[in-house]
Amino acid sequence: MYYPGPLNKLITALGKLPGIGPKTAQRLAFHLLNTSDSEAQGLATAIMEAREKIHYCSICGNFTSEDICRLCADSNRDRTIVCVVEEVRDVIALEKTNQYRGLYHVLNGVISPMDGVGPDKLRIKQLLTRLQEGEIKEVVLATNADVEGEATALYLANLLKPLSVKVTRLAYGLPVGGDLEYADQVTLARAFTGRHIIE
Amino acid sequence: MYYPGPLNKLITALGKLPGIGPKTAQRLAFHLLNTSDSEAQGLATAIMEAREKIHYCSICGNFTSEDICRLCADSNRDRTIVCVVEEVRDVIALEKTNQYRGLYHVLNGVISPMDGVGPDKLRIKQLLTRLQEGEIKEVVLATNADVEGEATALYLANLLKPLSVKVTRLAYGLPVGGDLEYADQVTLARAFTGRHIIE
Repeated sequence: MYYPGPLNKLITALGKLPGIGPKTAQRLAFHLLNTSDSEAQGLATAIMEAREKIHYCSICGNFTSEDICRLCADSNRDRTIVCVVEEVRDVIALEKTNQYRGLYHVLNGVISPMDGVGPDKLRIKQLLTRLQEGEIKEVVLATNADVEGEATALYLANLLKPLSVKVTRLAYGLPVGGDLEYADQVTLARAFTGRHIIE
Repeated sequence: MYYPGPLNKLITALGKLPGIGPKTAQRLAFHLLNTSDSEAQGLATAIMEAREKIHYCSICGNFTSEDICRLCADSNRDRTIVCVVEEVRDVIALEKTNQYRGLYHVLNGVISPMDGVGPDKLRIKQLLTRLQEGEIKEVVLATNADVEGEATALYLANLLKPLSVKVTRLAYGLPVGGDLEYADQVTLARAFTGRHIIE
């Protein structure tokens, strides 16, 4: 009511983004009106271009602008190990550690009956197809350490049991730099169970 | 490095928005890739449309999609009083009070030597032109209550002194619902100075 039509539309469109409330949407809209032509146009073009050119890697489900993603195409990576993650952003997080040199498989979600997401909605069939090729020796289940991630890991572990492939799960324990005093009981218990000999 | 080109571009473009850091930009970009076509396209179109159709009202400087804004065009509003504000969003804030029925004048900034903004960069000349028409009897200076807003109000008050027009400033005092104990000294002193007889 207070704004002219096109401005109202812009505020509404911005308000649909996650974590952007009405006040922030208004602030962003005002910024987009006051900023340079190139910045505003740049954003609009970037949205359209990304939508057009970015799609899922046909092998692992990562984002790519090619047919298969940079990681799957990289011949230097270890093709005998696959790390199963929930979302593309988990791939980025793991890549930033510079620790892991194998391949990935993005499930594109997590089993969550509350949200109506069953195993059939995830990219599990594609994982099985990859395993059937026989090159993969180990599957690392790197879903989140919450209830849904845990359930999905358990489901996959059971599913992969008949196959002659090693199935592992990321370690639980104290976060590095974490204080024993402030760790929750479950984490502490898991850290205790998972204790290892100092070499 | 971690993302394909078009996704990287989108994250960079989103990261230029005020208050959007790299993590949020990444989250928004991922959302824009995963959401429906209509939502993503809607945002891109809304940005371009708003940039194209929204401009400043030729009289008061408010945003409008017409030549003059809804408020200036409204014949029911009191044309003898003009409220001078810093930004368009201040117009919205004052309109929401449903208290004021006069016209506005948006300065489009505030005098701030630190940022290199002098009086000549503000819409002060346009204000003087409006005053010369003779219809306006009162100018309410409604710039912010901070140093720059205060300086701008003082500058305008001096500038308008020779003209036969009443110049007023918004009242200082306790915010409604505010606790005396938590009010800062300056506000409290101003509230004391501005005390009035209960009728």
